Amino acid sequence: MEKIKLERKVLSRNDLLAAELRSLFERENVAVMNMVSSPGSGKTSLLEKTLGSLSRKLSIGVIEGDIQTDNDAARIAKTGAPVHQIQTGGACHLEAEMVRKALTHFRLEDLDLLIIENVGNLVCPSAFDLGEGLRVVVISTTEGDDKPMKYPAMFRSAHVMVINKMDLLPHTDFDIEKAINHARSLNPDIKILNTSCRTGEGLDEWSELVTAFVHENV
Amino acid sequence: MEKIKLERKVLSRNDLLAAELRSLFERENVAVMNMVSSPGSGKTSLLEKTLGSLSRKLSIGVIEGDIQTDNDAARIAKTGAPVHQIQTGGACHLEAEMVRKALTHFRLEDLDLLIIENVGNLVCPSAFDLGEGLRVVVISTTEGDDKPMKYPAMFRSAHVMVINKMDLLPHTDFDIEKAINHARSLNPDIKILNTSCRTGEGLDEWSELVTAFVHENV
Repeated sequence: MEKIKLERKVLSRNDLLAAELRSLFERENVAVMNMVSSPGSGKTSLLEKTLGSLSRKLSIGVIEGDIQTDNDAARIAKTGAPVHQIQTGGACHLEAEMVRKALTHFRLEDLDLLIIENVGNLVCPSAFDLGEGLRVVVISTTEGDDKPMKYPAMFRSAHVMVINKMDLLPHTDFDIEKAINHARSLNPDIKILNTSCRTGEGLDEWSELVTAFVHENV
Repeated sequence: MEKIKLERKVLSRNDLLAAELRSLFERENVAVMNMVSSPGSGKTSLLEKTLGSLSRKLSIGVIEGDIQTDNDAARIAKTGAPVHQIQTGGACHLEAEMVRKALTHFRLEDLDLLIIENVGNLVCPSAFDLGEGLRVVVISTTEGDDKPMKYPAMFRSAHVMVINKMDLLPHTDFDIEKAINHARSLNPDIKILNTSCRTGEGLDEWSELVTAFVHENV
């Protein structure tokens, strides 16, 4: 039934291309993760920590999506990981076509994991499949606990929600339980992790989650 | 190409309608402010403080833009100000047409100031003129000082940048001078204010700025 429904669905051009990318990633045995969030949630910092802890065990490439700058790619390059910056030139999200073009900058056969850091935007990237196997939405304790309710499409489409900047929790009104309940009401299967790149809280669990995802896929 | 053409058409239609709204606001002597930011920068808290300090002197109406919830309208309604919630139903920004429809919920002739709180998004709302006289971009110290460089269209189009959550500054790596220099390099005329809704820092200057804007316009 699922298959018939899927076949009947009129796939948009992005969805078609994303499906092609997904097949390519499977053939090349590359696990692909798409990280989405508001601007300033700490995605790039979390990514730096991830590369620091996992790059001895896994071969990881990074695609950075930003509207204009290459600041984030420069930060990632310092970790030694192969990185390519996509500048969307005004577009508020990455699309599968942009990822396809960026792949020419990598040797997919050498990678275990490709991490795509999307443009900072809690709205538009939710609608654009990039062929990823894992979608991670990062929120921070300073953004308010109402984000899952206010941006439901993103939290419905994500496999994992990371609540970052836990070190700032005591200085905010953020209600962790409320944020978690809202996210689960939208998406009962969503995995939830609390992290802080400053204190290291939750980073071991995060690394384990990413490693398990790679091992399932490769 | 098709997509770009379509976007241009939508934008020019929006610009035409925004120009009509601007004429209407001038005829009715209403000053209009459009507040834009990332999700969770503290726009709604700043708005609550603004209404608290100015509503005895000015007649203020509020339009809230959100994708799905009416949480923010409920918060604003508690201040006693007339408020109408626009639920964009997935759209990542407000458009002039949405504002035009929302105006039927207000008696414009009774208002000195109409404040529009846009959808939390640092990208797309920059391209949609709502007929406002003042565009205010709010960033917070927890988002990182690179936001002006990474989302330049928004900072070029804004008249005022508010750096909010100054109370959290000691707990972050946010470099105020860097953020200000970046914003001014994009937009030399941008006015800049530092605020904290927790400690009250900068709120008097903010109220003065808003009051001066209303008096210039009315």
